Amino acid sequence: MGVVVQNIERADPAIVARLGACGVATVHEAQGRKGLLASYMRPIYRGARSAASAVTISAPPGDNWMLHVAIEQLRDGDILVLAPTSPCEDGYFGDLLATSAMARGCRGLIIDAGVRDVADLTQMGFPVWSKAIFAQGTVKETLGSVNVPVVCAGALVNPGDVIIADDDGVCVVARAEAEEVAKKAEARLAAEEEKRQRLAAGELGLDIYRMRERLAERGLKYI
Amino acid sequence: MGVVVQNIERADPAIVARLGACGVATVHEAQGRKGLLASYMRPIYRGARSAASAVTISAPPGDNWMLHVAIEQLRDGDILVLAPTSPCEDGYFGDLLATSAMARGCRGLIIDAGVRDVADLTQMGFPVWSKAIFAQGTVKETLGSVNVPVVCAGALVNPGDVIIADDDGVCVVARAEAEEVAKKAEARLAAEEEKRQRLAAGELGLDIYRMRERLAERGLKYI
Amino acid sequence: MGVVVQNIERADPAIVARLGACGVATVHEAQGRKGLLASYMRPIYRGARSAASAVTISAPPGDNWMLHVAIEQLRDGDILVLAPTSPCEDGYFGDLLATSAMARGCRGLIIDAGVRDVADLTQMGFPVWSKAIFAQGTVKETLGSVNVPVVCAGALVNPGDVIIADDDGVCVVARAEAEEVAKKAEARLAAEEEKRQRLAAGELGLDIYRMRERLAERGLKYI
Amino acid sequence: MGVVVQNIERADPAIVARLGACGVATVHEAQGRKGLLASYMRPIYRGARSAASAVTISAPPGDNWMLHVAIEQLRDGDILVLAPTSPCEDGYFGDLLATSAMARGCRGLIIDAGVRDVADLTQMGFPVWSKAIFAQGTVKETLGSVNVPVVCAGALVNPGDVIIADDDGVCVVARAEAEEVAKKAEARLAAEEEKRQRLAAGELGLDIYRMRERLAERGLKYI
Amino acid sequence: MGVVVQNIERADPAIVARLGACGVATVHEAQGRKGLLASYMRPIYRGARSAASAVTISAPPGDNWMLHVAIEQLRDGDILVLAPTSPCEDGYFGDLLATSAMARGCRGLIIDAGVRDVADLTQMGFPVWSKAIFAQGTVKETLGSVNVPVVCAGALVNPGDVIIADDDGVCVVARAEAEEVAKKAEARLAAEEEKRQRLAAGELGLDIYRMRERLAERGLKYI
Amino acid sequence: MGVVVQNIERADPAIVARLGACGVATVHEAQGRKGLLASYMRPIYRGARSAASAVTISAPPGDNWMLHVAIEQLRDGDILVLAPTSPCEDGYFGDLLATSAMARGCRGLIIDAGVRDVADLTQMGFPVWSKAIFAQGTVKETLGSVNVPVVCAGALVNPGDVIIADDDGVCVVARAEAEEVAKKAEARLAAEEEKRQRLAAGELGLDIYRMRERLAERGLKYI
Repeated sequence: MGVVVQNIERADPAIVARLGACGVATVHEAQGRKGLLASYMRPIYRGARSAASAVTISAPPGDNWMLHVAIEQLRDGDILVLAPTSPCEDGYFGDLLATSAMARGCRGLIIDAGVRDVADLTQMGFPVWSKAIFAQGTVKETLGSVNVPVVCAGALVNPGDVIIADDDGVCVVARAEAEEVAKKAEARLAAEEEKRQRLAAGELGLDIYRMRERLAERGLKYI
Repeated sequence: MGVVVQNIERADPAIVARLGACGVATVHEAQGRKGLLASYMRPIYRGARSAASAVTISAPPGDNWMLHVAIEQLRDGDILVLAPTSPCEDGYFGDLLATSAMARGCRGLIIDAGVRDVADLTQMGFPVWSKAIFAQGTVKETLGSVNVPVVCAGALVNPGDVIIADDDGVCVVARAEAEEVAKKAEARLAAEEEKRQRLAAGELGLDIYRMRERLAERGLKYI
Repeated sequence: MGVVVQNIERADPAIVARLGACGVATVHEAQGRKGLLASYMRPIYRGARSAASAVTISAPPGDNWMLHVAIEQLRDGDILVLAPTSPCEDGYFGDLLATSAMARGCRGLIIDAGVRDVADLTQMGFPVWSKAIFAQGTVKETLGSVNVPVVCAGALVNPGDVIIADDDGVCVVARAEAEEVAKKAEARLAAEEEKRQRLAAGELGLDIYRMRERLAERGLKYI
Repeated sequence: MGVVVQNIERADPAIVARLGACGVATVHEAQGRKGLLASYMRPIYRGARSAASAVTISAPPGDNWMLHVAIEQLRDGDILVLAPTSPCEDGYFGDLLATSAMARGCRGLIIDAGVRDVADLTQMGFPVWSKAIFAQGTVKETLGSVNVPVVCAGALVNPGDVIIADDDGVCVVARAEAEEVAKKAEARLAAEEEKRQRLAAGELGLDIYRMRERLAERGLKYI
Repeated sequence: MGVVVQNIERADPAIVARLGACGVATVHEAQGRKGLLASYMRPIYRGARSAASAVTISAPPGDNWMLHVAIEQLRDGDILVLAPTSPCEDGYFGDLLATSAMARGCRGLIIDAGVRDVADLTQMGFPVWSKAIFAQGTVKETLGSVNVPVVCAGALVNPGDVIIADDDGVCVVARAEAEEVAKKAEARLAAEEEKRQRLAAGELGLDIYRMRERLAERGLKYI
Repeated sequence: MGVVVQNIERADPAIVARLGACGVATVHEAQGRKGLLASYMRPIYRGARSAASAVTISAPPGDNWMLHVAIEQLRDGDILVLAPTSPCEDGYFGDLLATSAMARGCRGLIIDAGVRDVADLTQMGFPVWSKAIFAQGTVKETLGSVNVPVVCAGALVNPGDVIIADDDGVCVVARAEAEEVAKKAEARLAAEEEKRQRLAAGELGLDIYRMRERLAERGLKYI
């Protein structure tokens, strides 16, 4: 505890953007159904989307001191990812911190805890995915760390990993795998488009994906 | 497991429409305060409404194979009702399946599990009431059944039962009771209208419903 | 049980309005981080705001009789605060009761239980903060009390206390402390405004709040 | 609501006993992995076991009047199964009701709500599987029904169905299927015994169940 | 925050003992079904019982400093009651603190948070009712208060109130009402004893409590 | 997915034993308050203790195939650590698997899901820490991986890490840090012993830890 790692590597912004264009569900599938944060991580407003590079924070419960420290580490295109060291729903973050983070190019906040001032944050267009909306204030008494590996809402996030977030939730992509996942995700999207048209025309998935024979083998009976 | 019932009886569409016009809270009251699904079943967007005939699915946890099977059984005016055989929040359903279901006249999805691609579903106007929004993918390995009785979010749903869903939640009406419930629900609405006007004019429920005497009998004391 | 206190003292409406203008997060901070209701108390629609004087209700689980009794006690500028005597998510309150409450100048409802007819309530602009949205009906069989102290969602609320509610949640301010809290809250807002501008200009909280020295003292290490 | 069905059919006590000897996990498997109540239904003391015929109760939240009515319907070898009409954790049942039920040969209580006096119940050897232990008292004001179909903790229970309960939870077996399920469950137990010995001797499930080839087909890689 | 009230009034130990002999469920009923803490407050071992005078603690989340302060305020026959200012499950209390508290005559701990070293506490016979068992450590950085009113697990507890706790949960009795509640509770116990014997002999509650007529009036139908 | 790592490094058994002797709470403190699994991970019986080397399993929801694969990888002194790829409470593990695991020297199971046959497991003395006890059966259809890094109940576990588990919960110690943590934990225990005696003799933590001055500095007021 009490460490700030200043020089972290980040993924290529072009790749981050490509992943963001694919969306959480597609990226999650493309990387083999891993990397999702827990379903309780919800956006504070609908339609929020973000694709960015993680600046991670390990913070004590009810203490938001490290957020001030982390904001200094932000570069344009980063997103804050905060994991408390013990379960907590306090409102670590509000409109003042968001103002400061936006001034440094921050693309949002992923926090396995609470957030407040959500009406202001919505108006500012600062997206947050959180466990709770809760006005409960925090203190500034105990150190945590910035840019260390954290487990956030059940997923391991390393500093510099790519975070993709939208209405479906939040997904983390390891920096080293970002390019390959982007390719696979784009390929999935292309393949889906053709299927969407066939399905819209009334063709059945049973036929498109040739499921009938395998279902029969497994013993499905029609009555 | 592994059964698809193909010829189910459905309620008269006119009755389904009448129930839908009354809304969940009124229908629930009209049928004697029964048939509500659990309060955690929430619409993916506000203002969603649906009234339709249930095509039921009993599916293994984390396996959405039976949704493809069920879509073939859909007729215009149906709604999918999926109950996992064990608690699960995975995202069984997304925009491709919705495209396919809409092509067959489906009026929405009730799922005691998760759903994904909710931004797309919202844009498509495909209503879903679910336990969770979660991008977590599913497999296609294990059989379930279609159009068998299921317990969904705490309520028994038989294929062909009427499902009424809106911002207040989801209610199931047994097919055989649909017409009588519709009549009672419409009667309630009519009675409410007169009361709404009296209440809006400042009259008290205590007087309209003649509660003062019974409250006194029970011992209510004013200080 | 079974008591209705008719003459309660209320806070000065001007002070109530001043507290309302400050919002929940600021008021909560201004009174020393106390008075927040639990984070599960959520508004039924976004953008809802209320500042009002509490008329409290202690009600049995699944029994909304006392709401009718309480509505008679409402004056312009009041808000209903209902706490069940045992945990309950039933829909105690809907559009008819809201019509009646609005006719008496009621500013909303805080309920540690469920509410229904939320589409109507939203259209009427009647704000509710609740534990659940649930169509489940209630009975009128057992007495409770009106305008007695209640513990609602973890916070003690006395009749006549000031309730501040917005998208961040719900906060109660003791009537006797309302004026002082209002002053402190306004002072916070004023102080925040200057900081917001400095933060927006790119200054860091680390510098504005002079945190660097204290962080170093505690042992924070930059790598 | 407000109905007591007096003459229900019960399963053959010999079959009930055979099912009880197999235990919940085996019976659940033997009937095709269905019939389990939710995992939150826990015994009030470890080592509790029961196998009995269901006398069902549909009760309002916070109202235990129907328990008195149901006890009159009990015969030797029955078990009470109570489902509230809306989620509730109140303590519907305590040592006096248990004394009365035991006097009529009752084998226990399955309750999707709360229970109290658990120290006494434990000493009396009266087994209860419940959602909560909670001293919260109930009233006797509103009717429910006895011996109607109920959904209890997510499972459909008809009066006269067989209930098997132990430390692993609670399982319901439809009366009509009880004999066949008993046979299958006993067959499973017999088959397990031989496997247990082989496993205890160090043989691997991979070999006993011949899984290696199918795992390889699916693509499992050893590194 | 930051206040320690040193001279609090306590209830008469003889009355505390009488309430303890009645148990939680009876005391709760005797005082009109109020004062119960939430059902998630569970004893760390079965058979734990305590009746004592409350020394209250309002503590920040994840900070157990005030426990050390509170222990100095303990007198023989007291029990610690800790409420965090924001929801928290951290392990505020373990065997060292218990050793210290026992040395001052402490009868146990009621904590709306976590506890650890439960194997040791069990062996020492130091009873704890908590929200969680969790080894998570705490800090000593932020002040709280001792012997101020707190809301603990949903119930208001004033310093010097009587706490009754057993396997059924925890109940608080206001100091001023303790004697009257003790009388009523003892009267209930006496009345129950006669009923227990009649029920054990096979008489029905329906007859003992003369419920048949009122059930018929409400419309109960036997089929 | 679909990978089994066969040759993992394990910690020195002597160090594992030393850590086990210190217990979860002490080890967690000694390594800087990290490594705890979530508080919902509870032992299936009280008094269970385990200290062992992790063999990790990443398994699909509701599919226990990989347990059979993992058991072959067990050596004496290992413990199984299973994390589902999506939240699940199914009963992945029962007495047959335990028989097989014990035959290979397995010291227990840590599972962020369900377990069944707990009466048998208790009798066998096979300790399990799980999220749920649930008889729900699983299938064997989809691959997972063995001995890959997993996030289990919120904590990162690498194969070969040391697992310490007792009544307080479960803690993971990185293999590379095990020796140093063991030293620190033993030092804590030694220091605690002296304090325990002083506290038992009536000395106060306020004096032993010299807290009075710092409390006064922070502004604590005695009234």
